[in-house]
Amino acid sequence: MISNFFSSNTKRLFKYSKKYQKKVRNIFAFFLSVEILLLIQPFVLRYLIDDVMMQSNFSLLLPIIMLYLLLVIGHITLNFFANYYIMSYGADVIKNEQLILYEKLQKAPPIFLNFKIGDILARLTSDLEYISNFLVMTKPSIIINIIQFGRVSLILFLFNWPLALLTYATIPIYFWILKHFKTKLMETSKEERKGYSKVMESLREKIENVNTIKLYKKEEFFQQKLKVEIKEWSENKKQYVWSEVSLNRGLIFISAIMTPIILGFGGYMVMKGILTLGTLIAFLGVSQGLYGPLNLISGQLATLQQADTLSQRFFEIFDLPEEESEGIYSLPKNYD
Amino acid sequence: MISNFFSSNTKRLFKYSKKYQKKVRNIFAFFLSVEILLLIQPFVLRYLIDDVMMQSNFSLLLPIIMLYLLLVIGHITLNFFANYYIMSYGADVIKNEQLILYEKLQKAPPIFLNFKIGDILARLTSDLEYISNFLVMTKPSIIINIIQFGRVSLILFLFNWPLALLTYATIPIYFWILKHFKTKLMETSKEERKGYSKVMESLREKIENVNTIKLYKKEEFFQQKLKVEIKEWSENKKQYVWSEVSLNRGLIFISAIMTPIILGFGGYMVMKGILTLGTLIAFLGVSQGLYGPLNLISGQLATLQQADTLSQRFFEIFDLPEEESEGIYSLPKNYD
Repeated sequence: MISNFFSSNTKRLFKYSKKYQKKVRNIFAFFLSVEILLLIQPFVLRYLIDDVMMQSNFSLLLPIIMLYLLLVIGHITLNFFANYYIMSYGADVIKNEQLILYEKLQKAPPIFLNFKIGDILARLTSDLEYISNFLVMTKPSIIINIIQFGRVSLILFLFNWPLALLTYATIPIYFWILKHFKTKLMETSKEERKGYSKVMESLREKIENVNTIKLYKKEEFFQQKLKVEIKEWSENKKQYVWSEVSLNRGLIFISAIMTPIILGFGGYMVMKGILTLGTLIAFLGVSQGLYGPLNLISGQLATLQQADTLSQRFFEIFDLPEEESEGIYSLPKNYD
Repeated sequence: MISNFFSSNTKRLFKYSKKYQKKVRNIFAFFLSVEILLLIQPFVLRYLIDDVMMQSNFSLLLPIIMLYLLLVIGHITLNFFANYYIMSYGADVIKNEQLILYEKLQKAPPIFLNFKIGDILARLTSDLEYISNFLVMTKPSIIINIIQFGRVSLILFLFNWPLALLTYATIPIYFWILKHFKTKLMETSKEERKGYSKVMESLREKIENVNTIKLYKKEEFFQQKLKVEIKEWSENKKQYVWSEVSLNRGLIFISAIMTPIILGFGGYMVMKGILTLGTLIAFLGVSQGLYGPLNLISGQLATLQQADTLSQRFFEIFDLPEEESEGIYSLPKNYD
C-alpha cells in the first residue's frame, strides 16, 4: 500500500531522513513517557471517585490527589520538553541542510547552474522549512497519534467494552464528515480564490483607466460591471464559509452528542450496578480524546501528498554533480 | 479609559460601524441563545448524577438524557448558524465597502488621485478584509466573551463559592503567563525574522557571485561565513520556539493542574457531606471554560491596536472630495 501511496521522491526523502533517526528516537521516548502517564491518569480518577470519595476514605484523599497532581505535572513537563526539542531540532535540520545544499551549489560546475536565483533561494529557505518537517516530524507524529488512539481505545475497552463499542460506532460518521467537508472546503476555496483574482484584476483595470472612463462618461456602466463581479466573489466566499463552519461544527457535534449518549447508557448500567460511577466519569473524560488523533493523522497523510514536489526540488540541488579538479564531472554519488 | 486607548481613527471606524448595527444585533441574539443553553447544561448534568443515578431513579433517566441531548444539539445548531452568519455577513460588508470606495475613487477629481495603483488595490482588498472584521466582528465578539466569562463565573459561584474563589485565584497567574510569554514571543519573533533576512541576503549574495568566489578559491571562507550566520538564525529560532512552547504549555498547565486541585478540595467537601458528587463533576467541567474567554478577549484587544493604521488608510479614500459638474470640488460630507 505504502509503495503505491508515496512517490519515489518521497520515499527517497524518507530514506534520507534516516541520518536524523537517533535524535528523533530520543524525542520519541519523551512522547512515549507522556502516553504512559496519560494511561494511568483515568484509573487514578476512577479510584478517587469510587474508592476514596464514595467510601469516605479520608486518609487516602491526600495521597491520591498528590499522585494525580504529580501525573499531571509530569505529563505537562514531559510534553513541554518533547515539543520544544522536536521544534528546536527542526531548526537544526534546516541549518544542516542549508549548508549541505549551499556546498553542493558551490561545488557544481557552472554549466549545471541553470536555476534562477530566486528559485534557488526559495529551495534553500521556505522549501527547507517544509522538508525539515518531513525529515523529523511527520513520521514520529503519525506514529504518536496512532499510539494515542491505541491508548484511548485500550482504556475505553478496559473500562467497559459495550460503551467502548458504542463510542467506536461514531468513528465512521466522524470520518465521513471529515472527508466530505474537507473536499467541499478545497473546492469552494478554489472558487473563492478565482473570484478574488477576478475582482482584483477588474479593480486594477478600472482604477488604472479611471480617467478614460470619466472622459467617456461610462462611470455608471463600469460600476455596474464591478458590482456583478464583486457579488459573484461574495457568493463564492459564503459557500466557502459554509463548508468551513460545517466542517468545524460537524466534528464538534459528533464528540458533543457522545456525552449525553454515554451518560444515558452508562447511567443505566450504573443504576443496574454493572458499572461504577467513577468508571463512567473517567470513561467520559477519556472518550473525548478519541477524535483528536484521527483528525491529526488524516491531516498529516494529506500533507504527505505535497512531499513529492518538495523532495523533487530538494534532490535536484542535492544531486548536482561535483566539479573535479581535473575538469571531469563525476556523477552524483547517490545517482539512481 | 476607552478614549485614551483608541486612536481617533479607530473611534471613527467604530462610529462608522453603526450602519451595520442592525444585522449584527440579530447575530448577537443567536450567540446569546447559545449562552442560555450552555447555562442550563451543567445543572442538568448535576441533576442526572445526584438525583437520577445516585437515587437509581430509572423512570427519570430517559427524559433527562433527552433533555441533555436536546440542549447539546440546540447549542451546536445555534452556534453553527451564529458562526456562519457572522462570517457570511463579513463577506457582505467587504462587498459593500469595496463598491463604496470604488465609487469614491471614480468621483474624485484626478488631482486628488496621487496614490499608487498597488496601494489602492491593497486598500480595496486585503485592508478591507481586516476592516470588515473590525466593523462587524470585534465588538460583538469581545462582548460575547465577557458574557461567556460571566456565565461560567455565575455557575461556579452558584455551585460552590469557596471552590469558585479557589479557581479564580489562578486567573492572575494565567494572565501573567499570557502577558510575559506573549511579550517574549514578539521579541524573539522579531529577532528570528531579522536573522532570517540576514541569511536570505547572505545566500543571495553568495549564490549570485558563486563564480567569482570559485575564481579566487574562496569557497572555504564564504562557507564558514555563511555557517556563522545560519547558526545565529538557528539560535534565534530556538529562542522563539522556547517562548512559543512556554506560552502554550504554560496556559494548558494552569487549567490542567486545576483538575486535581478542585478534586482534592471538592472531594473533601463531598466526603464531609457539604457538596454533592454531581455538583463537583459539573463544577469540574464548567471550570475549564474560564480561561478560553480571557485568552480571546486579550487577543482581540491586541488586534484593536492595529486598527489605527487600517482605519486611517480606509478614511483617506473615503474622504476624497467629489468632483462636481461645475468643476468646483466640494469638501467631503463628513469632513472633520
